[in-house]
Amino acid sequence: MLQDINLKVRLNKDEYKPVIETLEISLGQLQRQAKQAGIPVMVVFEGMSAAGKGTLINRLILPLDPRGFKVYTVKPPDEEQALRPFLWRFWVKTPERGRIHLFDRSWYQRVFSERVENGKNRADCLNDYEEINSFEEQLTRDGMVIIKYYLHISSKEQQKRFKKFEENPESAWRVTKKDWEKSRRYDEYLQAGDEMIEATDTVYAPWTIVEAHDTRYAAVKIMQEFERRIQERLNQVSGGTTTLPEKKRIEPAMVLARNSILDSMDMSHTLDKAEYDKKLGKLQDEFRSVQFDLYRHRIPMIILFEGWDAAGKGGNIRRLTANLDPRGYEVVPIAAPTALEKAHHYLWRFWKNVPKAGHIAIFDRTWYGRILVERIENYCTETEWKRAYQEINEMEEQFTSFGIVVVKFFLHITPEEQIYRFETRQNDPAKQWKITEEDWRNREKWALYKEAYEDMLLKTSTTYAPWTIVESNCKRYARIKVLETAIKAAERKIKAAK
Amino acid sequence: MLQDINLKVRLNKDEYKPVIETLEISLGQLQRQAKQAGIPVMVVFEGMSAAGKGTLINRLILPLDPRGFKVYTVKPPDEEQALRPFLWRFWVKTPERGRIHLFDRSWYQRVFSERVENGKNRADCLNDYEEINSFEEQLTRDGMVIIKYYLHISSKEQQKRFKKFEENPESAWRVTKKDWEKSRRYDEYLQAGDEMIEATDTVYAPWTIVEAHDTRYAAVKIMQEFERRIQERLNQVSGGTTTLPEKKRIEPAMVLARNSILDSMDMSHTLDKAEYDKKLGKLQDEFRSVQFDLYRHRIPMIILFEGWDAAGKGGNIRRLTANLDPRGYEVVPIAAPTALEKAHHYLWRFWKNVPKAGHIAIFDRTWYGRILVERIENYCTETEWKRAYQEINEMEEQFTSFGIVVVKFFLHITPEEQIYRFETRQNDPAKQWKITEEDWRNREKWALYKEAYEDMLLKTSTTYAPWTIVESNCKRYARIKVLETAIKAAERKIKAAK
Repeated sequence: MLQDINLKVRLNKDEYKPVIETLEISLGQLQRQAKQAGIPVMVVFEGMSAAGKGTLINRLILPLDPRGFKVYTVKPPDEEQALRPFLWRFWVKTPERGRIHLFDRSWYQRVFSERVENGKNRADCLNDYEEINSFEEQLTRDGMVIIKYYLHISSKEQQKRFKKFEENPESAWRVTKKDWEKSRRYDEYLQAGDEMIEATDTVYAPWTIVEAHDTRYAAVKIMQEFERRIQERLNQVSGGTTTLPEKKRIEPAMVLARNSILDSMDMSHTLDKAEYDKKLGKLQDEFRSVQFDLYRHRIPMIILFEGWDAAGKGGNIRRLTANLDPRGYEVVPIAAPTALEKAHHYLWRFWKNVPKAGHIAIFDRTWYGRILVERIENYCTETEWKRAYQEINEMEEQFTSFGIVVVKFFLHITPEEQIYRFETRQNDPAKQWKITEEDWRNREKWALYKEAYEDMLLKTSTTYAPWTIVESNCKRYARIKVLETAIKAAERKIKAAK
Repeated sequence: MLQDINLKVRLNKDEYKPVIETLEISLGQLQRQAKQAGIPVMVVFEGMSAAGKGTLINRLILPLDPRGFKVYTVKPPDEEQALRPFLWRFWVKTPERGRIHLFDRSWYQRVFSERVENGKNRADCLNDYEEINSFEEQLTRDGMVIIKYYLHISSKEQQKRFKKFEENPESAWRVTKKDWEKSRRYDEYLQAGDEMIEATDTVYAPWTIVEAHDTRYAAVKIMQEFERRIQERLNQVSGGTTTLPEKKRIEPAMVLARNSILDSMDMSHTLDKAEYDKKLGKLQDEFRSVQFDLYRHRIPMIILFEGWDAAGKGGNIRRLTANLDPRGYEVVPIAAPTALEKAHHYLWRFWKNVPKAGHIAIFDRTWYGRILVERIENYCTETEWKRAYQEINEMEEQFTSFGIVVVKFFLHITPEEQIYRFETRQNDPAKQWKITEEDWRNREKWALYKEAYEDMLLKTSTTYAPWTIVESNCKRYARIKVLETAIKAAERKIKAAK
């Protein structure tokens, strides 16, 4: 998921200055109010080496009253600390009510680095993360606000920064052999970061991923999130028994333009007909032979499709299945739930359609409806769709830990392409049935769906069941990408089974 | 914890008849109301072989309308089922709103039996239990009521029942070789049962342990719990938006006498002075040598004391420490929290006192204050003390998984012995300081404390940190038992470290 983040976002000085000034005033006020309301706050900075933790912590504390906070720099445990359970040194550093403790690296440090540096296995790490979740849950239940930032930079940017440090005699000491070693193992750290966020991104202590190439952008995002979380807790507290002092209205800071995963996709991919024809048949044959291998090794597979109306789900599914043995796969089209389905848990009808070992199930729309159409049309409550991300991740983790290959496609088209397809359909008597009033109504909700899709891609692209975004303005390009991706995922599993 | 349950409880016919009649009327009514309110219910029966699951399920469903429920008997998975993730077959059997599904053995079956029969290791089982917890949490969040019974019988009773089956030609077929194998491995099943309950006794789907020697007692307990849980959910629902039809007042069924762990202790143990003197010095020397071994192997140890006023905590601690090297242990007396301590999470001050590797910390009163004095004196809310059981278990599990030996003593005396000690203190000028007004006030709350102690012993006696109840009417007996228990626990760990 981290590698999908668009790191090109930035703010220029003119955009930055008014925002940061408003935020500084706001943060100062919020600190005073939090103190008065007795709210304790812990702020965690984790992320890639050279992502700028120090600089950004400084930026955040600048507007704060230094008597009310303390910064801890977390090193590997010293002897005294190593003699006790690993959370001990963080328990004793929890702030008392009304104070803010910031951590440059934190309780995540040990697990995160051991995962890469000592090759600690995933299951042991998950146990450690369980302890961390229990730590954070116990504290937040008691009123603590826990704000966690993961600062993200690309491998190229990391190398650039190391080199820049080295060139300057004053900062050359900062770059060690170990740092270059880290840089070489960037991809492993990326993977470990994904696993860490997956395991500990909870409702009570969520992570904020900070695009840290541009310090101005990063600073604003960090401060806005800080503002939002403290304000949220203050509202909860004042909604309860504590009454807050009359406070000056805080000007809402300019909301950062949402960093869109979808907008950063290159939608210009195409494929000409000749090459498409050449590849298509070959891939369809390959997929048939993959199907037999799956059957032989008793590996089940789920391929699912979500995407914009008219993005080409049906066409893709036909190309995928053209050559398959019909006894070994099933296409599951998902429509509005029946009365019986509504009388069960929303995941019940999907569990019923789990393929058995050796079989392939292809879902045309899925359980993600909960956080897409059901969210947008208010078919469920906000609480319900917000907790669905975790529920869906848990289900897919159970699928994959049983051995199911889960391949998830999001078919993306631009609004211009969609309108072109709608109009073509409307004007073609053979295709008119494919376009309904509802399609036009959904189109009016483009922005709402886009937000829901982005949230979905961010929160449910996991190491065990990642999303593949398929640039689908060119149908031929999309169909080849889908076939290739599905084949590759299945072959990886088949190879492991041999 | 299971072995602490007093299995001697029973109801005679005269006690049973009026209760069961009231319960039957009540359950029939509740089923109709639950149907109308659209509440789905899952009921799980697990437990020892020959504990009477079949009989008791029949007893429970007798008053219910058969059109509204279904009983599933869970066998090891068939071929179709084994080809899918293990929870699949239970997901597809979840009841629709308004219906009741009962399970004779359940999703616990596989983990529980694999633990013993295939020697599956504890960590893998914990992962399975995580999946089960997520299954149960997802369903209850959606409105499901999950009621789980663990039917418990002793090894002797189990053998008796197997033999009785065998003697009768009509039931002899029911007893197989495998059953006798199970009977031989009774202790392993007991341990696996403890682990299972520990890992899955959640706020949303708690276990009810049913003493199953006496069918009448068991039936009443099962039906009362069923009544309580459905009624509880109905109240929640009607407190919300659904309005229930006018209903006839349900006569409250006679509450079963609480099955007391403390009352079942044999309080007549004594030890004469000569033998005490002989043993005491020897044990104290041993404990000193244990202390050195702990230090050499860098094993930390926590010994903690809870118990009635005047039960002898101080005297026990003095005997424990008499011969120890003072540089290697610390006695931590716990009084009311200071202002600074109150400004932190209630566990903070205990985390601060975690002993480092190789050292011993002895706590005179502890974190259990949360669910004892704080519960009784309303120093915290009901929600807070109710969630504390789990928080405390999580903390102790972190301690033990780090390698700390945790030994927990509950010093038990009878009310008669307490009053005798109070009066002796009052009349002895040298001891008058030990008795305060508060002691007399606490004594008036004997029943409240007893209930809180019983809950504590039931919910926090874990496989990793079990309670030892010390029969303390005879101080000499108690002191020897404390020393012996502490030495044994430490030696087990030292042996494993060698």
